Amino acid sequence: MNYKKIWKKAEKIIPGGNGLLSKRPQRFLPSGWPIYYKKAKGIYLWTLDNKKLIDFSIMGIGTAILGYANSDVDKKVKKAIDNGINTTLNCIEEYYLAKEILKYNQFAQQVKFAKGGGEAMAMAIRIARTCSKKYKVVFSGYHGWHDWYISANLSNVKNLNNHLLKNLKPLGVPKTLKNSIIPLKFNDHKELKEIFDKNKEAGILVIEGARNDYLSKDFVNTINKLKKNKKIIVIVDEITSGWRECLGGVYKKTNLNLDIAVYGKALGNGYPISAVVGKKNIMSKSKETFISSTAWTERTGFVAALETIKILKKHNVCSIVKKRGKKIIDGWNKTADRHNLKIKTNNFYAMPSFNFDYSQISEKLHTLFTKYMLAKGYISTNYMFVTYAHKENEIEKYLLICDQVFKKINKELSINKKLSNVPSRKMTY
Amino acid sequence: MNYKKIWKKAEKIIPGGNGLLSKRPQRFLPSGWPIYYKKAKGIYLWTLDNKKLIDFSIMGIGTAILGYANSDVDKKVKKAIDNGINTTLNCIEEYYLAKEILKYNQFAQQVKFAKGGGEAMAMAIRIARTCSKKYKVVFSGYHGWHDWYISANLSNVKNLNNHLLKNLKPLGVPKTLKNSIIPLKFNDHKELKEIFDKNKEAGILVIEGARNDYLSKDFVNTINKLKKNKKIIVIVDEITSGWRECLGGVYKKTNLNLDIAVYGKALGNGYPISAVVGKKNIMSKSKETFISSTAWTERTGFVAALETIKILKKHNVCSIVKKRGKKIIDGWNKTADRHNLKIKTNNFYAMPSFNFDYSQISEKLHTLFTKYMLAKGYISTNYMFVTYAHKENEIEKYLLICDQVFKKINKELSINKKLSNVPSRKMTY
Repeated sequence: MNYKKIWKKAEKIIPGGNGLLSKRPQRFLPSGWPIYYKKAKGIYLWTLDNKKLIDFSIMGIGTAILGYANSDVDKKVKKAIDNGINTTLNCIEEYYLAKEILKYNQFAQQVKFAKGGGEAMAMAIRIARTCSKKYKVVFSGYHGWHDWYISANLSNVKNLNNHLLKNLKPLGVPKTLKNSIIPLKFNDHKELKEIFDKNKEAGILVIEGARNDYLSKDFVNTINKLKKNKKIIVIVDEITSGWRECLGGVYKKTNLNLDIAVYGKALGNGYPISAVVGKKNIMSKSKETFISSTAWTERTGFVAALETIKILKKHNVCSIVKKRGKKIIDGWNKTADRHNLKIKTNNFYAMPSFNFDYSQISEKLHTLFTKYMLAKGYISTNYMFVTYAHKENEIEKYLLICDQVFKKINKELSINKKLSNVPSRKMTY
Repeated sequence: MNYKKIWKKAEKIIPGGNGLLSKRPQRFLPSGWPIYYKKAKGIYLWTLDNKKLIDFSIMGIGTAILGYANSDVDKKVKKAIDNGINTTLNCIEEYYLAKEILKYNQFAQQVKFAKGGGEAMAMAIRIARTCSKKYKVVFSGYHGWHDWYISANLSNVKNLNNHLLKNLKPLGVPKTLKNSIIPLKFNDHKELKEIFDKNKEAGILVIEGARNDYLSKDFVNTINKLKKNKKIIVIVDEITSGWRECLGGVYKKTNLNLDIAVYGKALGNGYPISAVVGKKNIMSKSKETFISSTAWTERTGFVAALETIKILKKHNVCSIVKKRGKKIIDGWNKTADRHNLKIKTNNFYAMPSFNFDYSQISEKLHTLFTKYMLAKGYISTNYMFVTYAHKENEIEKYLLICDQVFKKINKELSINKKLSNVPSRKMTY
């Protein structure tokens, strides 16, 4: 089977080739990306033509916190499958999971589940707007594809540019939603205060628990003051950041006074499950609007999440992931130094990233890095999710390969300063 | 384990007790509904206290078209689980499923997948609005919880009353969406024409493939004319009606000129998978707006749907389901006649339903029916989904029990005309 031919055929019948931007080959390599997997286990992947690769990249875009095909999680799911996953009656695991999640979210008393992160955020916004008399949302970060969020670009197509994805056209979003949502720079506490002072109709704040950085003290203090003085509703999107460095969200490292935390990705170790977790006075209002979906009561997601949380706790995974993430970031920095390469690394250890700091040719360098790593058997780009399956010895091996690749890149740069023949990967939508 | 106590506890930490209105006990019986299952196979359910029940009701709200825990589907899914379900690379089954679905939707050339029905409809609307210069939606039927739909009740809280759920408060939906969507009576071709004549900004029509009835000839002809003369975009929601009486949607029984069909529920035999299937000129525009979600590329849904379609085809399930549905409807009518009970049955065989025709006390009669059926070991209410697992002999046994229960209800009515001690089930949100 020729995987390139299959992808071309897929692009003809599936717009974009698949359902998730982050898994499209052009975001990794302009050509030569393996695209499809046949089998996956731990951090290992087997391509359609049976090549074994080691994944030091997005690990199922952050879902596989325990590694691919975790035996304990899968065993529980398979047992649930044998006993039926979606019936006329309810599965008790929905209740058990709600109870379990609340243990690790002391601020909250109620939970609603969904399958995906985007729809969970849409649910959180609906609930917040049900409670708040002010429907306008102030936001920082990436929060999915739904109208409430993409409407940010109705007034200016660059409004979302600093929030993960550039120049998203808000086509198909009703124009009447213009100005319903206001962008804010992450951790900019002055801008935060100004926005709420200026916009009397702004009643809801949406931020990410972490992306490149943790929440700053000043930012958190300003939010807490706004919450007290203006009664704003605070939603923390922990879909990407949650259940990695903390059992629950990274907000727990701060004294943030939040109303809702939203989880997804890592929560089910690959099985679709997301959760909107919040204070009772807020969440209980969801009964006054209409929020309901058949897929949400399907059993596998609850079962997978219960076992995932159990393992995270039992093996102290969160602190291990944090430690290993730091090791990778430190390793990149040392290696880059050694080979006179300028890189900038991030601060959120569970999701290490670096950027080559060479203005115009930075993207070309990222292409080179991925290309040379792939030649050594690694799926690797300039950002990754650390998982429990990235064992210390694997990290050490990986960093040795990074060393070789950085050395090679340095050599290439010294003879070809503009990297004229190297194509850039395509990071836009 | 006392299931009633568990449900009470669940209601305290999950608003509504679960994530799906249709599985809440008050919709079946005011008290005494078993609420939770432990195990399910075919049409059999085992409750937490190990009572075996036979399901002649919503069968996982229409998901289990082949019956619960179908061995062939589950085998394929478990194999996929062993090989990893959500990785950095793509699973090839996404492409295979797109190809397979297009076989049975000759009008269409492209497919996008999601997990739930509601989010697939939100996606279809986004795509349609991306293509149409007219963003207003004319609709008939039930289409989920998202803002675009619930906004129908912003101008009048009764707008959705004839479309499955009554008096839904549109709380939390931005008021600027008022008048963005216009309700239409199912199969009312005159109203359909009038609405599009009156509303110059209406460019999109959303209907269900079937609910109580199939699409009428006049309705379909009027839609086709509107499509030709006004270039409206036609979306058929086949989430509930699809893959039951046809491989694909019930629209196939007509000559409807549609742009998008949306599938869910039965497609994955319980595993969450939904699909937006449409013409290339429409679907390809989805690349110009932003639609993407991590959960959508998870493997189990694709694998389950591929095997479900294979079985539907191999065993000629659709015509069997239709025939058995007719048998049930005929059986109800004969039995009701025999015991002098007035009922009205529907015309869409795959989803048989009846309503007691006794004005105020009808709901009380539905309660009685469910209560007496449960006493005989049946999960049964006045509507159901027929599945391949409802074998002929089981239907015959069921109809014999219905006969006993209708007889009992007739007796009860003759001595207690107002059914004064019988509570009504609660069908509202």
